[in-house]
Amino acid sequence: MVKVNRALRLDANHRLWIEEQPIPQAGEGEVLVRVRANGICGSDIHFYERGVLGPFVVRQPYTPGHEAAGGIVALGAGVRDRQVGQAVAIEPGIPCRRCRFCKMGRYNQCPQVVFMSVPGVDGTFRDYVTLPADFAHPMPPGMTWEQGACIEPTAVAVHAINRAQIAPGATVAVLGVGPIGLLVVQAALAVGAGKVLALDRQEMRLALAQKLGAIPINIIAEEPLQGVLSRMDGQGVDFTFEAAGHSSATALAPEITATAGVIVQVGWPEIERVPYKVETILAKELDVRGINRYANAFPPALSLVGRGAIRVEPLITHRFPFEEAPAAFAYAHEHPEQVIKVVVMN
Amino acid sequence: MVKVNRALRLDANHRLWIEEQPIPQAGEGEVLVRVRANGICGSDIHFYERGVLGPFVVRQPYTPGHEAAGGIVALGAGVRDRQVGQAVAIEPGIPCRRCRFCKMGRYNQCPQVVFMSVPGVDGTFRDYVTLPADFAHPMPPGMTWEQGACIEPTAVAVHAINRAQIAPGATVAVLGVGPIGLLVVQAALAVGAGKVLALDRQEMRLALAQKLGAIPINIIAEEPLQGVLSRMDGQGVDFTFEAAGHSSATALAPEITATAGVIVQVGWPEIERVPYKVETILAKELDVRGINRYANAFPPALSLVGRGAIRVEPLITHRFPFEEAPAAFAYAHEHPEQVIKVVVMN
Amino acid sequence: MVKVNRALRLDANHRLWIEEQPIPQAGEGEVLVRVRANGICGSDIHFYERGVLGPFVVRQPYTPGHEAAGGIVALGAGVRDRQVGQAVAIEPGIPCRRCRFCKMGRYNQCPQVVFMSVPGVDGTFRDYVTLPADFAHPMPPGMTWEQGACIEPTAVAVHAINRAQIAPGATVAVLGVGPIGLLVVQAALAVGAGKVLALDRQEMRLALAQKLGAIPINIIAEEPLQGVLSRMDGQGVDFTFEAAGHSSATALAPEITATAGVIVQVGWPEIERVPYKVETILAKELDVRGINRYANAFPPALSLVGRGAIRVEPLITHRFPFEEAPAAFAYAHEHPEQVIKVVVMN
Amino acid sequence: MVKVNRALRLDANHRLWIEEQPIPQAGEGEVLVRVRANGICGSDIHFYERGVLGPFVVRQPYTPGHEAAGGIVALGAGVRDRQVGQAVAIEPGIPCRRCRFCKMGRYNQCPQVVFMSVPGVDGTFRDYVTLPADFAHPMPPGMTWEQGACIEPTAVAVHAINRAQIAPGATVAVLGVGPIGLLVVQAALAVGAGKVLALDRQEMRLALAQKLGAIPINIIAEEPLQGVLSRMDGQGVDFTFEAAGHSSATALAPEITATAGVIVQVGWPEIERVPYKVETILAKELDVRGINRYANAFPPALSLVGRGAIRVEPLITHRFPFEEAPAAFAYAHEHPEQVIKVVVMN
Repeated sequence: MVKVNRALRLDANHRLWIEEQPIPQAGEGEVLVRVRANGICGSDIHFYERGVLGPFVVRQPYTPGHEAAGGIVALGAGVRDRQVGQAVAIEPGIPCRRCRFCKMGRYNQCPQVVFMSVPGVDGTFRDYVTLPADFAHPMPPGMTWEQGACIEPTAVAVHAINRAQIAPGATVAVLGVGPIGLLVVQAALAVGAGKVLALDRQEMRLALAQKLGAIPINIIAEEPLQGVLSRMDGQGVDFTFEAAGHSSATALAPEITATAGVIVQVGWPEIERVPYKVETILAKELDVRGINRYANAFPPALSLVGRGAIRVEPLITHRFPFEEAPAAFAYAHEHPEQVIKVVVMN
Repeated sequence: MVKVNRALRLDANHRLWIEEQPIPQAGEGEVLVRVRANGICGSDIHFYERGVLGPFVVRQPYTPGHEAAGGIVALGAGVRDRQVGQAVAIEPGIPCRRCRFCKMGRYNQCPQVVFMSVPGVDGTFRDYVTLPADFAHPMPPGMTWEQGACIEPTAVAVHAINRAQIAPGATVAVLGVGPIGLLVVQAALAVGAGKVLALDRQEMRLALAQKLGAIPINIIAEEPLQGVLSRMDGQGVDFTFEAAGHSSATALAPEITATAGVIVQVGWPEIERVPYKVETILAKELDVRGINRYANAFPPALSLVGRGAIRVEPLITHRFPFEEAPAAFAYAHEHPEQVIKVVVMN
Repeated sequence: MVKVNRALRLDANHRLWIEEQPIPQAGEGEVLVRVRANGICGSDIHFYERGVLGPFVVRQPYTPGHEAAGGIVALGAGVRDRQVGQAVAIEPGIPCRRCRFCKMGRYNQCPQVVFMSVPGVDGTFRDYVTLPADFAHPMPPGMTWEQGACIEPTAVAVHAINRAQIAPGATVAVLGVGPIGLLVVQAALAVGAGKVLALDRQEMRLALAQKLGAIPINIIAEEPLQGVLSRMDGQGVDFTFEAAGHSSATALAPEITATAGVIVQVGWPEIERVPYKVETILAKELDVRGINRYANAFPPALSLVGRGAIRVEPLITHRFPFEEAPAAFAYAHEHPEQVIKVVVMN
Repeated sequence: MVKVNRALRLDANHRLWIEEQPIPQAGEGEVLVRVRANGICGSDIHFYERGVLGPFVVRQPYTPGHEAAGGIVALGAGVRDRQVGQAVAIEPGIPCRRCRFCKMGRYNQCPQVVFMSVPGVDGTFRDYVTLPADFAHPMPPGMTWEQGACIEPTAVAVHAINRAQIAPGATVAVLGVGPIGLLVVQAALAVGAGKVLALDRQEMRLALAQKLGAIPINIIAEEPLQGVLSRMDGQGVDFTFEAAGHSSATALAPEITATAGVIVQVGWPEIERVPYKVETILAKELDVRGINRYANAFPPALSLVGRGAIRVEPLITHRFPFEEAPAAFAYAHEHPEQVIKVVVMN
C-alpha cells in the first residue's frame, strides 16, 4: 500500500503533473478510499485543452477525475454500513441534503452540490479520496476496478433511461455513440427496449454499437431521417436520446421521434440557442426531458453492470498506469477517433 | 323546434353566409344534436381571415365551429347510454378507435382523427349535427348552453394540466392569457397550484386573469423574467404554460422555470424554428411537453365547470344570435383587443 | 417572552403535568422555536389513555405533541435560509438524510427517523423546541398560530392526496371524517376532484364535511355501498380514502371503488389481519396504496391553507391555554363526540 | 389448406370432441385467420374439469382456447394494415372501444369486452377464427407458431410488469413459477430487474426458473420469509409478484416486500377473503396493484420474445396435433406436475 497520496494536477496553462500530497482523514460519516482506477471523461479533456467549460474556469491547479473506484481503507466516526476492505464506486457529486431538491429525490439539482473535478474541487485522480460513506457504493462480488471506474458514466446512462421511462418493446434511437451513447444503447436494451438504432459518423463507434445490440446508421453514408424511417417501417422511434452534444442532433430529434414519443437530451449542444422546431413538439405531443448528471443511479448501474446486462469493458480502448496519467490525457486528447474510454489504474 | 338545418358556410374568398341544409340522420352508435350555442375559436377566425392554417387550406365552402353544446334529439341504432333530451357538450375530434394511439388512451394523436371544422369537415355552426354518442358528453344539471359551448376550450386547458401533472402547492406561470390562458390559470388553481402568475401585454386580459385568481404581470410595463423572479423570491416557477403562441414566450419559458420544472407548450409559435436555449433544459433538468387538442378531457372539464372550480362566463365578452353569425365573425376579427370569447346562440 | 421552558410531561401512569426545563440551544443547522400553538393528535390521546400504541410504549415521562407552530427566536451555526422572527410550522419527523429512502425523496420511510412525541423523544408541548432549520417551514403572511399548528395533520392529508394522484374531475369517497378525513375531503377538492362523498356515523362530523364541500352519507342511516352507488349513478368512485381506521372501512373500500380505481389506506385498522376481498382488487385492477406520515408535504400544505383552498379553522372545536394542557387532554379524551381538534396556545 | 373448420368443443359434462363447422367470413374491419397453434391455459383445464370458474358456467357446448397464432387468409372490408399471408398472434379479448376504459387505454377493463373461450364465446381451438384486424398482431420474422401461441400468456406477464413499473436494478420476488410466473421472471429481467427470486414448491419449476435467470427458493425446504431475507442481506424485495393464486402467497407478499415496495397481484386466491395484514401496507407504504388480463401488451410481448429477451420454448413441455386436442386436455389435467405448457398444433 502506498504511503503517500499521489495526485494528478492540472493548471490553467494546460500542464498536467503528479505531485505528492498528505493522505486525508475520513471525517464524521466519511470513508477513506484507496483509488484503484479512474476513467478519463470528456470534460476532463475539455478542461485540459481549453481551461474552461460553461461557467467553470481553471484558475488554480486542481485534480481532475470523477469516474473512479477503489477500496475502503478507513471509516470515519459514525459509519456503520460500510466496512474496511469493501470495493466501492465513487459517486462524485455531494449534495447539501437539506434543500428541496435533495428532499424530493433529485439531489443532482441541489444548488450547493460539490462535484469532484470541477475546477476548485479536487477530483479522483489521486491515490486517496475521502467522501461521505453513502456516496461510496459497494461493488458486487467479482467486479473489476476498471468496471467500477465505468459506473459513473453508466449512471449517466441509467439516469437518462430513468428520465425516459421506456416502455417494454419500445423503439429507441441514440444520436451519437461515444461512451455515453454506447451505455445508453445498452441501458435501453437492458430495460426492455425492442429495437435500438444508433446514429453516428464514426464507423468504429457504430461497429461497437452494433456489437452491443444496436442497429447502426452512419449519418455520413445516409440521410439520418431516411435512415431511421427506412428501418422503422416509415415510423419514428418512441424514444430518442440526444447523446451527440451537437445542435444538428438536437434539431433532428423531433423529426425522428414518433407521435407521443419522448426525447431525452443528454448531450450539450455546442451553441447557446438551437433553431428548434417547436411546432413538431406540439403536433406530435412530444416530451423533451433534459438531464444533468444523475441521482440514485449508482446502485442500479452497479446492479446492471454486475449481472452483465450492461457491459463496460468493450468501451475501454486504452489503459495507462497512474504514473502515466499525463500521457493518458494527452493521448485521449490527440486521438479522439481511436479512443472510446481511457482508464488509468492506480 | 326548427325544421331545417341552418348552417354557416365559409369559402376561400372570406365569405360567410347561412344556408339551409337537410337535417342529418343519426347513424349506428350516433346521436343527433340540436346545437344551441357555439363559441368562435381563434382558428375559425384564422381561416376566415387567411383561408389557411398550417397544412389546412380552405378550398371548398365548409361549416366552421367546434366549440358547441346542444340537446340530443334522436338516437341512432344501438345507442343505450344517451337519451333524447339530454344536454351535451360536443367533442369534435372523432378518432379511428383502432390505432395504437387510440388504444393507449391518446386518441387525439390518432392519424385518422376527423376533426369538425377543419376545412373539408363540416363543423358545429349548424342547427343539427350528428356524432358518435360517446363524443356527446352529458352536461351536469344547471349548466347553460353557453357554458356548454365553452367546454371545448376548457378541455384544452384540462389536457394541458393533465400533461403537466401539477403538484399541490406548486407555482405556475401562464404566458398569454387569451381564452386558453385564462382557462389554464383557473385549471391550475383548480388542481391545487399554490400561486399562478399571468403574463400578457393586454391590460383587459390581465385584469380578468387577476379576477380569476392569478397575479398579473404586464410584460410591456416590466421585463418578464424580472417580473417573475420578483414575485417568486428570486426563484422560477415550477410549471410554465406557453399559451401565447409566440416564439418570444416559447424562448422565455425555460428562463422563468425553476430547476426540475415543467414547461407545457400549448400555443403554436408564429415561426417554424424557435431559437431555443436547450442548455437551460439540460442545466435545470426541465421537461418540455407539447399538447395537441385533448383526450379524455371533456368529462373532467364538465365536472370542474359544473362545480364552479373553473368559471367560463367571465370569458364570454360578446353574444350573437345564430342569424348574425357572419357579423359575429367579423366583429371578433376586427376587435381582437375587446374580445375574449364570442358565443353564438342557435 | 417567557424565560423558562414550560414542558408538558406524560408518564406511564396516565399522569400529565407541566414542569420547567432549561431552554435548549440551537445546534449547527438548527433553529430554536418559541412554540405558540399545539394541536392534540389522536395518538397523543392514545398514549395518555393506554400508554402504548403499536410497538411504542410509555416507560419514562416524556413530552407529547407533534402538531405545532411558533416563531424562530435563534439560529444555530450555518443557518442561512431562516431568520429570527419568522413564523414556522414544525415538521416533527427528522430523517437520517443518508439512507436510500431519504435520497429517493421518501424520507418518511427512513428507518432512523426521529419523530417528536413518540415515547422516548420529546414532542412539541413545550415553550421552546430546537430542530433542523429545513424542518421549520415558513408560514405565509397572515397565517395564525392555530392554523400553523394544523399544518401537520394537513400534511398527512396532502401526502395521501399525493399518493392518490387524483385526476381532475375524478370522484372520491372518504371513509371516516375525523380530523384527517375532513382534511382529505378538502385536499381532494383542492386538487380538482369532481365530487367527494364523506361516510361516517357521527352527524356532527358529516355536517362539517358537508359544509366543507362533501356529500354526506351516514352509514348508520343507510347501507354504505348502496349509499355510494345511489349518489354515483350506480358506479363506484375513482378514489377511496380509508381514514376511519377500522377494518370494516378497509373491507368496504374495494367494494365502493370503481374499476381501475385507487384506494389510499390512511387509517390503521384495529385488527392485525383484515378479511380482504383480494379478488376484487384483481377483477377491477385496483391500486391500494398505504401511507405513513408524509414527505415533502409541509410546503404544499402551507400553500393550500395559506390561500384558503383548505380551511383548518372549522376543525378547531376547542381551545385551551398552555397551563391547562392537562385539562385539554382530559377533555379530548372524555368527549370524543364533541371534539374534532383541540388546540392549546402557549 | 384444410377446407373445413375443425373445432374443439367442450360441454357441461366434461366431454371434449372435434366437430366440423363452416369456415367463417371476415366482416368489416376483420381478418380471417388460419390457426396454427394453441396453448392450453389453466382456465381451459379448469372449465374442462369443473365446468365453472368464478361467474362463468359451461351450459352449452363451446370452443375453448385463447392462446393462439396463425396466418391471415382473408381480409374483411376496409382492412388496410394487414395482409394475407401475415403470421399473427391473436389477442382474444375484444372491447367495445367506446367506454371510458377503452378511451383511457385500459380496454381490458371494458365491461362489454368479449373474451374468446369464456363459455358462450367460442375460442381459438379451431382451424379458422375471425377477429378485428387490430387484434391480430403481426409476428416478427422467424417466430414459430408455437412461440406465437405463447404470446398471450407473455402478454399477461408484460401487463403485470407494466403495472409494476420496475426500476432498473430493482429486486424482485415471484411467488409461484407456473407458466405465468416463469414469464414474469423473464419479463422482470428483461426490463432491468437486478435480481429475481422465484418461490415455489415444485422442483421442476424452480429448476426452470433458475435456468431462466431466477434464484430459486423451495418453500417446502425452507421458510419463505427467511428464504427471501437470507438472499437479500436481510431486506425485502422492491417488487413482489403473486403468481401462485393462493392465499398463503397473497398473505406472504407484504412480509417479503421492502419498505416503499410494490406488490402486483397476478394470481387469484382460492378463497374470497384473504386475512391480510393491512398494517404492513401502511407501515411500509406499500402499493398493491391488481391485474386482470392485459391492454396494449401484445406488441411488447411480441417484441421481447422476438429478440430473445423472453424465451417461451423452455416452457413448452408437451406438444399434440390438433386431432389429439381432447387427449392433450386430458394429459394436462392428469399430469399437473409434469406439465408447464401444452401446445396443440393445427
